[in-house]
Amino acid sequence: MIQQFYIPVKVLFGPGSVEQVGQEAKSLGSRAMIVTYPDIRRLGFLDIVLKDLESQGIDTEVFEELEPNPRTTTVDRAAGIAREKKIDLVIGMGGGSAMDAAKGIALASSGEAPIWDYLLGKAQAKGTIPNLIQIPTLAGTGSELNPICVFTHWESHEKRFTFDPNLWAKTAIIDPALTVTLPEKLTAGGGVDALSHIMECYLMPENPLPMNDAIREAVMKVIVQVLPEVLSNLDDVDSRSQISWASTIASSDLSRLGGSAGSMTCHGIEHAISGYYDVNHGAGLSALLPAWMKQFEPVRKERFELLGKNAFGKTDGIAAFEDWLEKVGMKLRLRDLGCELEKADEIAGIALKLWDYTPHPTEMNAEIIAQIYRDAF
Amino acid sequence: MIQQFYIPVKVLFGPGSVEQVGQEAKSLGSRAMIVTYPDIRRLGFLDIVLKDLESQGIDTEVFEELEPNPRTTTVDRAAGIAREKKIDLVIGMGGGSAMDAAKGIALASSGEAPIWDYLLGKAQAKGTIPNLIQIPTLAGTGSELNPICVFTHWESHEKRFTFDPNLWAKTAIIDPALTVTLPEKLTAGGGVDALSHIMECYLMPENPLPMNDAIREAVMKVIVQVLPEVLSNLDDVDSRSQISWASTIASSDLSRLGGSAGSMTCHGIEHAISGYYDVNHGAGLSALLPAWMKQFEPVRKERFELLGKNAFGKTDGIAAFEDWLEKVGMKLRLRDLGCELEKADEIAGIALKLWDYTPHPTEMNAEIIAQIYRDAF
Repeated sequence: MIQQFYIPVKVLFGPGSVEQVGQEAKSLGSRAMIVTYPDIRRLGFLDIVLKDLESQGIDTEVFEELEPNPRTTTVDRAAGIAREKKIDLVIGMGGGSAMDAAKGIALASSGEAPIWDYLLGKAQAKGTIPNLIQIPTLAGTGSELNPICVFTHWESHEKRFTFDPNLWAKTAIIDPALTVTLPEKLTAGGGVDALSHIMECYLMPENPLPMNDAIREAVMKVIVQVLPEVLSNLDDVDSRSQISWASTIASSDLSRLGGSAGSMTCHGIEHAISGYYDVNHGAGLSALLPAWMKQFEPVRKERFELLGKNAFGKTDGIAAFEDWLEKVGMKLRLRDLGCELEKADEIAGIALKLWDYTPHPTEMNAEIIAQIYRDAF
Repeated sequence: MIQQFYIPVKVLFGPGSVEQVGQEAKSLGSRAMIVTYPDIRRLGFLDIVLKDLESQGIDTEVFEELEPNPRTTTVDRAAGIAREKKIDLVIGMGGGSAMDAAKGIALASSGEAPIWDYLLGKAQAKGTIPNLIQIPTLAGTGSELNPICVFTHWESHEKRFTFDPNLWAKTAIIDPALTVTLPEKLTAGGGVDALSHIMECYLMPENPLPMNDAIREAVMKVIVQVLPEVLSNLDDVDSRSQISWASTIASSDLSRLGGSAGSMTCHGIEHAISGYYDVNHGAGLSALLPAWMKQFEPVRKERFELLGKNAFGKTDGIAAFEDWLEKVGMKLRLRDLGCELEKADEIAGIALKLWDYTPHPTEMNAEIIAQIYRDAF
């Protein structure tokens, strides 16, 4: 099997690294647009970035009207402004939604088509699109190290993603000090998302290379041990740093390297749910993962034993993971998130259209997905 | 501390991946030069690459007159041919020397200056230099994942390197099947080089992040366990694959990530020796490493205990490493490599000029380096 490993992003990591944004931006553009939520200004983070860009003589436009799970109409509106102002650098600042929105805005600003057309494959990037800098303020999503953006069409409940090499960030600035103000629930959700990126890749393959297993175990151990510490002391930069770094590595090509399974199938099902109900991605994963695990545990017994032993120091992988979810306050069921039992089949249909399930250890069809949904309800 | 992590190279890995060279080359150039040793043709590897490039309609020039540790005059001669033939893609195929030569040829072909002027900082890349594809046929050096080239001026015995962002390969093709014909000594030398890349970074810092330690331990364990297996069965592609993959990861920015020490100081001393005596880099490292370890073990006792326990499963890190060198046939002394005792001070002087020793755990001066040389003699 021939495998690919590619992360063409310059990663700057460490508390205070956000103050290098001007230095980085200087060689990437002269008219920047910052894409973010209103909260980021309130927390004082926006000012740090604005001052730093100004000191390098970069004209800056701020677009801070993003919703959580941004609407495609919002992206189109921002892309229009970017086009009009001849923006050549887009800076995403926030969680996965803000970084995905930055990608979508950069892409759609290159032509006249709405972003949904790009997701449908009806439009393609025209010429050079603006450069991207990504500054996550939430550890977990990993959007800073991939060229993918995901959006929902809120009329049709359809969630789609596009993978476009133009969407690689030139620079990702991982500053753990920006994550200390993040409230408990979002912190825990990000942690589950990060763990899931690596755990899904760990559980699905039958015979991964031992070294890649060991690397994945090293990253999982950190998240398992340190996330509860972060939650009991939210403003501790040291433990926040460990989680930020583990999340970045977990979400990069490293989690999938040499002998992994490619597509993360629990992520596929969750995207269908959070496209339908506007639930937080980490919360959706927390509710789904135990049911998803139990579905294929019979054909991957050894992998689950290794998970228990090497990530949690326990014998039963699934029980250990459920105990840990309890500990980080994420033992959830889909009913807690506003989902409806009778939508199981409809959502299974969406999930099947949305994602590639071929690397899943068992057959995967609408019936099985609907059953996972019901088991997680 | 703000740290950087950057590997902008598309890595293709797996037995048979060399046959993707044409596909990769197609988008990178139309007039390619393959830079390699005469052996590569004899082994049949050159033909695979030539056929594949031809099938994509790429004009190809072969430069196969490289010596081990190539002369700068050889690089200049090849750069002249590249300039004349308007080469826009240079493909390095071989060990570290061939890949470094490919970088040097690409760089020097961009202007009229000899390569040594670039190493002296007297010349700089002009405009765009040819794209690079690197195809290692020896696991260990890691040249495929860095933008550094090292050359020796054989009149002055001076070894110099240059770090130039233009020298990042666009694609690195890691095909373990190309390494099966490599003889025992070179295989073992490459293994020591790879282990050293990660072991030096593991031993030098006082308090690295636990996750990065665990990642480094995972990679070291593979090399420690699998290299003896490779040596007892040289044509086994499975164990060769494990070593190839571990070497690639060991030599990338991953070995230095988050909390490591940057400069590998044993490498610095070895480069002074192999610039003076034309010894194999892996052999030079094998002779030096135990003496280098003993020099700072008193101030990093805990790191050496961790090395013993987590890489070798033994209590004494240095003794465990020396036993392992014995096992892989690399328990060497500098006297075995043709070095002279009375050159200790001269070589220490060269080593000091060549490298940055500031991350070393103790003070480092000419006297200490000369003592390491004498201890390794």
